[in-house]
Amino acid sequence: MLMYEIDRNSSDPIYIQIYQHIKEDIECGLIKSGEKLPSKRSLAENIGVSVITAENAYAQLAAEGYIRSSPKKGYFVQRLPNIPEKREASEDLAQPEEFFAQNNDVPELFPFTVWARLIREELTMKQTTLMTPAPAEGVFELRKAIAEHLKSFRNMNVSPEQIIIGAGTEYLYILIRILLGDRSLIAVEEPGYGKIADIYTSLGMRCERIPMQSDGIDVEALAASSADAAHISPSHHFPTGVVTSIAKRYSLLGWAAEGRYIIEDDYDSEFRLSSRPIPPMFSIDVTDRVIYMNTFSKSLTSTIRISYMILPMPLLKRFKERLKFFSCPVSTFEQYTLARFIESGAFERHIRRLRRYCRSKRDRLMALVSENELFKNAEVSGMSAGMHCLVKFDSILSDDELLERVKAMGLKADKLSEHYHAPPDEELHTLVIYY
Amino acid sequence: MLMYEIDRNSSDPIYIQIYQHIKEDIECGLIKSGEKLPSKRSLAENIGVSVITAENAYAQLAAEGYIRSSPKKGYFVQRLPNIPEKREASEDLAQPEEFFAQNNDVPELFPFTVWARLIREELTMKQTTLMTPAPAEGVFELRKAIAEHLKSFRNMNVSPEQIIIGAGTEYLYILIRILLGDRSLIAVEEPGYGKIADIYTSLGMRCERIPMQSDGIDVEALAASSADAAHISPSHHFPTGVVTSIAKRYSLLGWAAEGRYIIEDDYDSEFRLSSRPIPPMFSIDVTDRVIYMNTFSKSLTSTIRISYMILPMPLLKRFKERLKFFSCPVSTFEQYTLARFIESGAFERHIRRLRRYCRSKRDRLMALVSENELFKNAEVSGMSAGMHCLVKFDSILSDDELLERVKAMGLKADKLSEHYHAPPDEELHTLVIYY
Repeated sequence: MLMYEIDRNSSDPIYIQIYQHIKEDIECGLIKSGEKLPSKRSLAENIGVSVITAENAYAQLAAEGYIRSSPKKGYFVQRLPNIPEKREASEDLAQPEEFFAQNNDVPELFPFTVWARLIREELTMKQTTLMTPAPAEGVFELRKAIAEHLKSFRNMNVSPEQIIIGAGTEYLYILIRILLGDRSLIAVEEPGYGKIADIYTSLGMRCERIPMQSDGIDVEALAASSADAAHISPSHHFPTGVVTSIAKRYSLLGWAAEGRYIIEDDYDSEFRLSSRPIPPMFSIDVTDRVIYMNTFSKSLTSTIRISYMILPMPLLKRFKERLKFFSCPVSTFEQYTLARFIESGAFERHIRRLRRYCRSKRDRLMALVSENELFKNAEVSGMSAGMHCLVKFDSILSDDELLERVKAMGLKADKLSEHYHAPPDEELHTLVIYY
Repeated sequence: MLMYEIDRNSSDPIYIQIYQHIKEDIECGLIKSGEKLPSKRSLAENIGVSVITAENAYAQLAAEGYIRSSPKKGYFVQRLPNIPEKREASEDLAQPEEFFAQNNDVPELFPFTVWARLIREELTMKQTTLMTPAPAEGVFELRKAIAEHLKSFRNMNVSPEQIIIGAGTEYLYILIRILLGDRSLIAVEEPGYGKIADIYTSLGMRCERIPMQSDGIDVEALAASSADAAHISPSHHFPTGVVTSIAKRYSLLGWAAEGRYIIEDDYDSEFRLSSRPIPPMFSIDVTDRVIYMNTFSKSLTSTIRISYMILPMPLLKRFKERLKFFSCPVSTFEQYTLARFIESGAFERHIRRLRRYCRSKRDRLMALVSENELFKNAEVSGMSAGMHCLVKFDSILSDDELLERVKAMGLKADKLSEHYHAPPDEELHTLVIYY
């Protein structure tokens, strides 16, 4: 089933976006030559567009020779005369030994050739620039490139001045600690990504766990706590996959408006696979209470340590007062290279490639799951984004037994209960499966 | 006057070391062809070696055609048949506009060609390695390369396991805060490098200023304080240039032995221009109370953010307990490139080149100074290392007037009093001059 994300804020017409997605999938071999495409009616339904839009997309593909229409039979992919470079990589990806490796650290997925070319060009042409120490916030070119990326990708209106570059998210937490004060109590999600609380705690801050609900963090429990800030991931919560509802987003902003802060961790927004874009809380906040945080760890590689946060104006002022004498911890060499990588469009192409990879892994996981007795009547959730899903089994097996069976299938998984600070007493029969 | 540093712990004979230094200076154009060299007697005296050693060095140079001996006249540099690549760069350095720029950020000094080659090789050959997240301490190859460098360069016996890689020294301070606890009181030098206390303070630690004396920090004042640790730079204090005496080093170790810590900041040890190597306190400490800290900011460039510290065993254990889940903040791409840069010998060559550059700038500064009336009877100190010196003027001019005059000469300088947290009331008639 073809599922593509449509950006309704894009200046490109929707039919062109669909055309481009399908064209890329054909070029990289995800859709094989000779394969039958869905009817225009079912394509329209899948993506949530009109039939005429789907028809226009197919017409464009046919006009360019990617597909052909066979009367009464449907649309079929043409054999392409030349095998593009991408294809090889895509075929590599299908090797079973790396099927369930972590996406972001698969060497075949990193754009080594482009990166090597860009860094060589920077080292040749920008020697004086590279030797100029960056301001505490990071080099302007990178912050500008990120602002433009966020505009086109997340429809966020951000000034480069608000963007602070860090060496991994830990470093940003350190800055947040200095900005919010070391007496701050930070609310974190329960269950959640355990490292967040570990780092805050090791930096001498206090953390309080607030339960997750099906539409986001429990705002009543949050209000009852004395938290000064809440570190949350409204776009796609780990491990539950919950997307915070728009109503809850406004409640959270109401809570923050009374002198508190939301730290919006948008760690895997680039991996959204469904077609409904959700505006980040930063964009709907008019009271300057949201700190937006993101990283290139997932969208590029975790081994180039580049992350960033966007500060609301009052905190930006505080940053300039308290942190102006810090040195930006990221090498100028890599900041300029990444800026070029984003500006040149290579980053966007890279994300599309990662998404296709995720989508194909997700589809294969689903195929595997649908054939397996263990998964019968299981509820699978949290697949709208990211690289993991939650599976609640209809089984009398213990969590440990379930985990053992799933691992024996070659899947990477752990128990949902492991992601609780205080795990529930009963068995949850729920695993987090990574793809 | 030729002044070279001799490493008496090196496996190379001393005459070979002298031969190599002179050979390099000839090759890079610092000693011009046709120039007369000092007599073997005065060379021996300058460097503090025997006359026979100096003679052996000259004999080797003559045998290889670098110099010729002219009976009764002395030794002269031969014209070299081919101009080596280095020469151009060295001539660039002599351009007046950059004469007093900061050494470490002069683009002509950074080994761009070597660096570009190494990073290209890493990106081609180590793709899987580069995609593997580094442990919290940093990649092993770099820590091993640093350990070997410290052995050959500082005669330090350090295991790679003790070395922790950071993104600039600020990041290391953050780790130190976590290791020592946030209630720690840190003693810092007065006068001193102001940023040290600024950063500790912004991280929520308390600092106490302890006066500097002519042989290092005032140990009595330190003992009278309730400091838990002292952050000092015994090899070469900024801004006074004081080298902590060996007696004081032992007193400091005695102070630390009672459950306290010395943070030994060896920030510019690579730039020692005199020939007496002083062992770092880390090497003479048998009670595990010294944290050694260094950076590639000065010896390579401040824009590649790589620093490191060496932990004594008990703190290493604490690191593993409390900080193991932190991600190393430096990109693996640059960690592996730097490891190769050190292992290949390129780093050592680069340091020699920087030293020659510093030495020539120092000599030219001295020449400028010796001809100027303002500097008559001035005491110049702190020139055994680093890139700055202290000048105490014999003058009735105010510090501001002195600074104005010195700046008018095209020198980069500031007032010693600016480096005090609580500047003395009277005029110090002393400037820090950077070269």
